[in-house]
Amino acid sequence: MTNGDASSAEDRLIARYFRPLVTHPGAFGLLDDAAAIAPPAGCDLVLTTDGVIAGVHFFPDDPPGTVGRKVLRMNLSDLAAKGATPVGFLMSIALPGEIDEAWIAGFAAGIGEDAAHYGCPLLGGDTDHTPGPIAVSIAAFGAVPHGKMVRRATAQVGDCVIVTGTIGDAALGLTLRREPTLAQKWRLSDVMVAQLVERYLLPQPRNALAESVQRCASAAIDVSDGLAGDLAKLCRASAVATEIDAGRVPLSEAARAAIAADPALLETVLSGGDDYEIVLTLSPRQLDSFRSSAQAAGVAVTEIGRIAAGEGARFVRDGCAVSLPRPSYSHF
Amino acid sequence: MTNGDASSAEDRLIARYFRPLVTHPGAFGLLDDAAAIAPPAGCDLVLTTDGVIAGVHFFPDDPPGTVGRKVLRMNLSDLAAKGATPVGFLMSIALPGEIDEAWIAGFAAGIGEDAAHYGCPLLGGDTDHTPGPIAVSIAAFGAVPHGKMVRRATAQVGDCVIVTGTIGDAALGLTLRREPTLAQKWRLSDVMVAQLVERYLLPQPRNALAESVQRCASAAIDVSDGLAGDLAKLCRASAVATEIDAGRVPLSEAARAAIAADPALLETVLSGGDDYEIVLTLSPRQLDSFRSSAQAAGVAVTEIGRIAAGEGARFVRDGCAVSLPRPSYSHF
Repeated sequence: MTNGDASSAEDRLIARYFRPLVTHPGAFGLLDDAAAIAPPAGCDLVLTTDGVIAGVHFFPDDPPGTVGRKVLRMNLSDLAAKGATPVGFLMSIALPGEIDEAWIAGFAAGIGEDAAHYGCPLLGGDTDHTPGPIAVSIAAFGAVPHGKMVRRATAQVGDCVIVTGTIGDAALGLTLRREPTLAQKWRLSDVMVAQLVERYLLPQPRNALAESVQRCASAAIDVSDGLAGDLAKLCRASAVATEIDAGRVPLSEAARAAIAADPALLETVLSGGDDYEIVLTLSPRQLDSFRSSAQAAGVAVTEIGRIAAGEGARFVRDGCAVSLPRPSYSHF
Repeated sequence: MTNGDASSAEDRLIARYFRPLVTHPGAFGLLDDAAAIAPPAGCDLVLTTDGVIAGVHFFPDDPPGTVGRKVLRMNLSDLAAKGATPVGFLMSIALPGEIDEAWIAGFAAGIGEDAAHYGCPLLGGDTDHTPGPIAVSIAAFGAVPHGKMVRRATAQVGDCVIVTGTIGDAALGLTLRREPTLAQKWRLSDVMVAQLVERYLLPQPRNALAESVQRCASAAIDVSDGLAGDLAKLCRASAVATEIDAGRVPLSEAARAAIAADPALLETVLSGGDDYEIVLTLSPRQLDSFRSSAQAAGVAVTEIGRIAAGEGARFVRDGCAVSLPRPSYSHF
């Protein structure tokens, strides 16, 4: 993406669709081989990478603008859960032989819109030709006060377990995207179906809470592979346990309706992935402060349990263990 | 790559092959969602990204260890040309359905060896399943004194044009890799063939010169897409011109022998790519200092021309223009 040979098709694409996205002076207009950034004084740079592949992470006929926005938001969600403020991102794109320029135009417009909205500018990248499907990989950078990245491994016994937003909508939306006829079985209105599918297509990363997470949380992880699996990772890393009352997990009206029609969907909701919410732990002393910040940011936050000694994250409903044979999404 | 669910195949691979590579405390043992680094005080962080796809950038039967080393070295070469000292890298890997664990083991061993050698540790990453070929994308980070990244756009009229190492070996090696019978036509010894193929498989990035480049160069670019094309980019970005005597371009003994047998190979040498040398410009006042540093580092450096007013990078041989219809490698 930093190739400056204006005669190549690659450079024409970059100049036309990606150069207009550049706002950071350290990107040198995508006309150099590298970018240069100076992290804010006293801050660490938080680094994360996540990507999507057509046919694996998105449907080839998903709107290209939402694909662009989603892949950036996946990375923004990781920064938010670590308490980091966005600084910028690098993007690597592999495109099949026949370049669908309309797809690229839509993709670039979508990602550009979110880069501006979240204050996370494009810093550079790389474009390649691939015999495989379209693949996009992003490396995103954020800033936190030195030594203050919120970790997975630092939850304390007695902490509250908090989750942002609602859980399971994207997993239900993906299921509906694959089998639209389920809407009837689940007794969902058209509006509810649209809400669930929208949550799958376009996550709402909680960057508005990043500073509060950094200030209040003892540990955090973004919920991308399923609440049950991601909370299990946090507990394992922290060498603690938690028992969550599934009835306290925040659900949208649409998700509640679907579970009422088919109670087995509770498993999809708890382990389905693609939520891009944050599950965090904090000392009960921090609870009011965090709630106030979340309210000011307009983000719902719900206490779903406490951290205890032991190991594992268990979910119970009406006093019985919820069976989650596959608590987390894995690409293998 | 920062998934901590030990039960998944992804995590087993990460734990077995990539976690042993982690040496930087900010990588948190690949057990968190992100890494955190503190750039050296007073330094900018230089960011670059480059990747490889099987069947496009490497042959599926290339030794996996050299694939790992090459993809890291491609990024290290960009850092060197920008005058930056390696800090670390993120890696995104897409693997086909049937995972060849021996391939991954070889790949990880190779990249780990180079990460240690060049002082560029693995900081984190992402693994995915792909219906396409193996693809690896790296985002690499380096440090330079604040505001001192060596740019493409800052060459000055009167500067010397310097190139490191030798040019064209990798392009000839790639041609021999594709058509081994050419060795006879080019009258190359087996040793020469092996040297050229080795240069294609395993570039020698000039990180030993990064500090000297930062101190002495007015502009620089790594030679990855062909000397002619990359020098043209530098001239275009700097709004200057240069005329290079092709007879002064440093060639290995093997490349000289091949060109003697087939003079048309001069075009391959000047525009073939994959050199991972540095072409830089510097004030004549800096020449002795740069030469001394290069000698101390054991890297050959050659003055191949001067920067002039005007536009374009032209190559002449015996007073005649060298025709380079395709001066640079493009993936499209």
